[in-house]
Amino acid sequence: MKVGIIGGTGYGSIELIRLIQKHPHLEVSSVVSNSQAGTPFNEVYPHLSGIVDQPLDKFDPESLSENEIVFLATPSGVSSRQVPTLLEKGIKCIDLSGDFRLRSPGEYEYWYKHTPPEMDYLKQATYGLSEIYAGKIKTASIIANPGCYPTATTLGLIPIIKTNLADINSIIIDAKSGLTGAGRGLSLTSHYAEINENVRAYKLGAHQHIPEIEQVLSDEYGEQITISFTTHLIPMSRGIMCSMYINLLEDISTEDVIQLYKQFYEHNPFIRIRPTGNVPSTKEVLGSNYCDIGLHVDPRTRRLTIISVIDNLVKGAAGQAIQNLNIMNGWDERTGLEFIPMFP
Amino acid sequence: MKVGIIGGTGYGSIELIRLIQKHPHLEVSSVVSNSQAGTPFNEVYPHLSGIVDQPLDKFDPESLSENEIVFLATPSGVSSRQVPTLLEKGIKCIDLSGDFRLRSPGEYEYWYKHTPPEMDYLKQATYGLSEIYAGKIKTASIIANPGCYPTATTLGLIPIIKTNLADINSIIIDAKSGLTGAGRGLSLTSHYAEINENVRAYKLGAHQHIPEIEQVLSDEYGEQITISFTTHLIPMSRGIMCSMYINLLEDISTEDVIQLYKQFYEHNPFIRIRPTGNVPSTKEVLGSNYCDIGLHVDPRTRRLTIISVIDNLVKGAAGQAIQNLNIMNGWDERTGLEFIPMFP
Amino acid sequence: MKVGIIGGTGYGSIELIRLIQKHPHLEVSSVVSNSQAGTPFNEVYPHLSGIVDQPLDKFDPESLSENEIVFLATPSGVSSRQVPTLLEKGIKCIDLSGDFRLRSPGEYEYWYKHTPPEMDYLKQATYGLSEIYAGKIKTASIIANPGCYPTATTLGLIPIIKTNLADINSIIIDAKSGLTGAGRGLSLTSHYAEINENVRAYKLGAHQHIPEIEQVLSDEYGEQITISFTTHLIPMSRGIMCSMYINLLEDISTEDVIQLYKQFYEHNPFIRIRPTGNVPSTKEVLGSNYCDIGLHVDPRTRRLTIISVIDNLVKGAAGQAIQNLNIMNGWDERTGLEFIPMFP
Amino acid sequence: MKVGIIGGTGYGSIELIRLIQKHPHLEVSSVVSNSQAGTPFNEVYPHLSGIVDQPLDKFDPESLSENEIVFLATPSGVSSRQVPTLLEKGIKCIDLSGDFRLRSPGEYEYWYKHTPPEMDYLKQATYGLSEIYAGKIKTASIIANPGCYPTATTLGLIPIIKTNLADINSIIIDAKSGLTGAGRGLSLTSHYAEINENVRAYKLGAHQHIPEIEQVLSDEYGEQITISFTTHLIPMSRGIMCSMYINLLEDISTEDVIQLYKQFYEHNPFIRIRPTGNVPSTKEVLGSNYCDIGLHVDPRTRRLTIISVIDNLVKGAAGQAIQNLNIMNGWDERTGLEFIPMFP
Repeated sequence: MKVGIIGGTGYGSIELIRLIQKHPHLEVSSVVSNSQAGTPFNEVYPHLSGIVDQPLDKFDPESLSENEIVFLATPSGVSSRQVPTLLEKGIKCIDLSGDFRLRSPGEYEYWYKHTPPEMDYLKQATYGLSEIYAGKIKTASIIANPGCYPTATTLGLIPIIKTNLADINSIIIDAKSGLTGAGRGLSLTSHYAEINENVRAYKLGAHQHIPEIEQVLSDEYGEQITISFTTHLIPMSRGIMCSMYINLLEDISTEDVIQLYKQFYEHNPFIRIRPTGNVPSTKEVLGSNYCDIGLHVDPRTRRLTIISVIDNLVKGAAGQAIQNLNIMNGWDERTGLEFIPMFP
Repeated sequence: MKVGIIGGTGYGSIELIRLIQKHPHLEVSSVVSNSQAGTPFNEVYPHLSGIVDQPLDKFDPESLSENEIVFLATPSGVSSRQVPTLLEKGIKCIDLSGDFRLRSPGEYEYWYKHTPPEMDYLKQATYGLSEIYAGKIKTASIIANPGCYPTATTLGLIPIIKTNLADINSIIIDAKSGLTGAGRGLSLTSHYAEINENVRAYKLGAHQHIPEIEQVLSDEYGEQITISFTTHLIPMSRGIMCSMYINLLEDISTEDVIQLYKQFYEHNPFIRIRPTGNVPSTKEVLGSNYCDIGLHVDPRTRRLTIISVIDNLVKGAAGQAIQNLNIMNGWDERTGLEFIPMFP
Repeated sequence: MKVGIIGGTGYGSIELIRLIQKHPHLEVSSVVSNSQAGTPFNEVYPHLSGIVDQPLDKFDPESLSENEIVFLATPSGVSSRQVPTLLEKGIKCIDLSGDFRLRSPGEYEYWYKHTPPEMDYLKQATYGLSEIYAGKIKTASIIANPGCYPTATTLGLIPIIKTNLADINSIIIDAKSGLTGAGRGLSLTSHYAEINENVRAYKLGAHQHIPEIEQVLSDEYGEQITISFTTHLIPMSRGIMCSMYINLLEDISTEDVIQLYKQFYEHNPFIRIRPTGNVPSTKEVLGSNYCDIGLHVDPRTRRLTIISVIDNLVKGAAGQAIQNLNIMNGWDERTGLEFIPMFP
Repeated sequence: MKVGIIGGTGYGSIELIRLIQKHPHLEVSSVVSNSQAGTPFNEVYPHLSGIVDQPLDKFDPESLSENEIVFLATPSGVSSRQVPTLLEKGIKCIDLSGDFRLRSPGEYEYWYKHTPPEMDYLKQATYGLSEIYAGKIKTASIIANPGCYPTATTLGLIPIIKTNLADINSIIIDAKSGLTGAGRGLSLTSHYAEINENVRAYKLGAHQHIPEIEQVLSDEYGEQITISFTTHLIPMSRGIMCSMYINLLEDISTEDVIQLYKQFYEHNPFIRIRPTGNVPSTKEVLGSNYCDIGLHVDPRTRRLTIISVIDNLVKGAAGQAIQNLNIMNGWDERTGLEFIPMFP
């Protein structure tokens, strides 16, 4: 099956290329980058020399229509305009940007400061959290592929909030991310000398992933949930860890919670629940599509700590996008995604 | 004034040497390391070549008695035995280890797995959080110099818990530390290839700084406080950030909280409160004795986020030890400590 | 085909496991670690949870004999004793350690400070530099898999020294390596706080890869070549760059040299020669089996600079070992090894 | 003594501020940044909060004339225009940029691609390599403060080239630098995700420090010297290591060379020659004004390897600038510069 990629020179796009190469049923027919159309890909990314040597394409719905599915790995505000054009050509869209994730156009505008997609298209979009929404993903024509932080966060929280064991008003999420999460765009924040040997908290109370996380958790719980969510930049390239804290309403043990999570995810090959006394570190999922989750109940405070880790470019972006494509095509969701984490 | 240093080959000890060199009233007379006695210091640490070339000494109370004050930068369980000997010789002790920090011998034994100091000596110890206990520090003969995490944590929390504005049962501390915090002892945890490009949560619910933080906060609040405290290793050498979350009982603004903190610390030159919309990163205090604090109230959750950063080897160890020595001697607490952070 | 791995808890061994999982014809039947026999593999390496959960085995030639080929990823001095036992059982050996690389037992003893293998076995060993010795590798029963530095060095130098264009007495190799090259054994050198934010030169004139490089270059040139070889540790996990300098005897251009290298390696899919003005960085081969080479002639000095980069754990160890196994079995040498570099 | 700083928001400038704070005779009267004039300094650099809070100034020769000496830490092509204006006001200039380093305007134009300073002013400039040219520096009105690479390189090479022991046509310099050397200007090269976990060679045969190094070495040798000089970016913030290779014409031992260097630098407190078997790493001079040099003769090749390390922002920029100011004022050259390296 031929697929196209739009947003060709960002990190999400080259990660798609890396992963698709190992996929038995997929072939990249076209990589679109309006800003660098005509440039050979290996000039932009020399690591692709001899692998992807063709020039980058301009956005052209006509020539993209040879693809059944197109991935959009574009900045905010772009896919809202391109997805309608592609749908008209009968092309399904997997959008890695945030444009189609929020159901409310007003919320989108508030947090993203861009014009939202039209309501007709927003309604067609399915939120692509593979483990939770596989049923809907199967038949979707627009996949709003989840953000990196929301993926790690919601996969870590959903099992406990779906019980009646936790105080849903007490959720605190302390998130730590490597620098690829900030993309390839130049900024002082991503300037090596400023972030090396440094930890920096940013966008306090203002991160655009807050409404996305709340939307998913509220859907799963059945009532509105409001969270505290704080993001930190860590001097590493890849990886997200979400350390999450939630008050328990009953005395249950770490073992019980682990058991509960294992059952919840027993049919989900990419979720690995760690045994008692063992919490995951980000490097233990590097380069892979795994989300590893560690759990600890502190009897002193009756609080549950959840440590959830992913590779932000894989399970947090390109990997989950391919997982969704697999689901859409009725293939085993693991197809082409069984990479062992690259440790160390 | 001559001072001695015991525990000579650890990171705390060499940081003392680095700082004391710039102190106008201090001179290091002797550096003790039983394991490497006789070895010239610059063989152990070539960066000291031409600066500290004398050999390391054996522990000998007699020869140490030329010092008025001795710093102990030893592993847990050592200073509990050495401090009594030194006190007998009339030497005041500033202990950078955890041995004299907890008032309860039982607690010490539970968290540290070592024999606690004798009660007589424990009672003589003053907890050396300079900004809070300067009065007692002035006349102390044993200073229990605070741990790195407790310093960043308690300085960030005390102003708010001393008001009636916060729910003291809701405190959650998410702490991030560089690797020097784990010392110079070899372990897989500190092995470069295992922690580079990685974030790791460790000692969940079991960190020995938990009782220390709770003791200080409870003292300041007047009732027992129980906290959630989770530590993470970050791929950097120096620096601690504590991201702290606490529920507010009333609607107050970020500006009000900042004002409250500024007043609380108005006579403390090493505490810098950041203005609205600005939170500190660890590199902004690197190599210095500052503790920088950023504050943010989220009106959606009525929760206060506190970001407190220090250099763990300076304000979290050697710097605060010298600050305490300054206070003990009636000198300006800034003496010899006014280093501009080394950025970048 | 079933294969065994000896030396199961080192970085070379887990990299073999990572790569073999993607190999269509191979299956790991047994992973041997005498020091941790009985421990489930995922306890030693949690990133393998759910992937490799069986316990580590003890060294047992009998049970290993179900394998046609065994990889030895052991410390120096071990495979010299184990290979003979395995050969007797009819098992072919690919040795990733240095034991069988030097033809002269005296040289081995001088540089490695271990007892060399017996001469009978040394003679059976074939040096496994895949691109150069594929013919001999095909029929070998012992492969001495090249060292990481020698791989990057010799692949970069052989094309030029096989011409008469260079002064073979002028070769200077300045090598830079990440920390995985130093293995998983604990040492102050690999202690995070000591090597982060640091560059360190080590083993000047004493590195055990010197005689290995000289042996290969001398074989290819036909006369004894003596080199200067200096190694440096760089604060990163993976990657080797060899910057090499050699005087040219004639005026030739960068373009000519590039052409010469392209022709030399035209049938070698893992060698990528960069175009004029473009030299590779280590991250551009991360996680892959590529060796990328950049070339620059300085007309001011008539000196050729060669920049050769590999991932030390892949092309410098596990990847080349599998490439050799492919050659031994008559398979396409790329089988199971076509990983796109993981950038960024 | 009051001093001014021009180029106020670059790394060289803030390092000057950090060091001057500890200087007993200096006070910064004004920090000039045309691009950010009016902005409080602590907004640009929050680590200076409470230390340097005044606004940045516009370039104004009149108000700068209250200073006896001004430091220019500006990009190439700026000080060539500003220095004449300042000289007219009777202000001595220490220029940290490259504008006044090359005696030949043509060479400057060729390597820097900027208009060179006028010949009259070029002639007044003294090259500020403190250890070598102290005599001339004493009376200079324009100091061309050396580049970071030239400092580490020439200090490491001058002692051997001033003997008749080495083949001066054989000099090869392999230089490694942290990212602060590339400044605060945004570029993909300095983008965290692109250079973390990476080593990159750059500007092969085209680095603007080549003519500067050759000018100094040729001056010291008495004949034209041509070098090979290759620069590499290393994933760290600060530090330069130059690994240098030179053929010896006679059989001399490592010990003899060390002795020769020790004598050469016996009156230079910032040069530390390491003993046999010991070579410096960059972290061993971090934050300090030292240049540490290690030496090794390989009897197999009769080649001398010289490892020279500095902190590029201190001895390679701001520290040497202050050292030169000390010399100009007849003060001990160590005044205000005796920082112990910040290890680890």
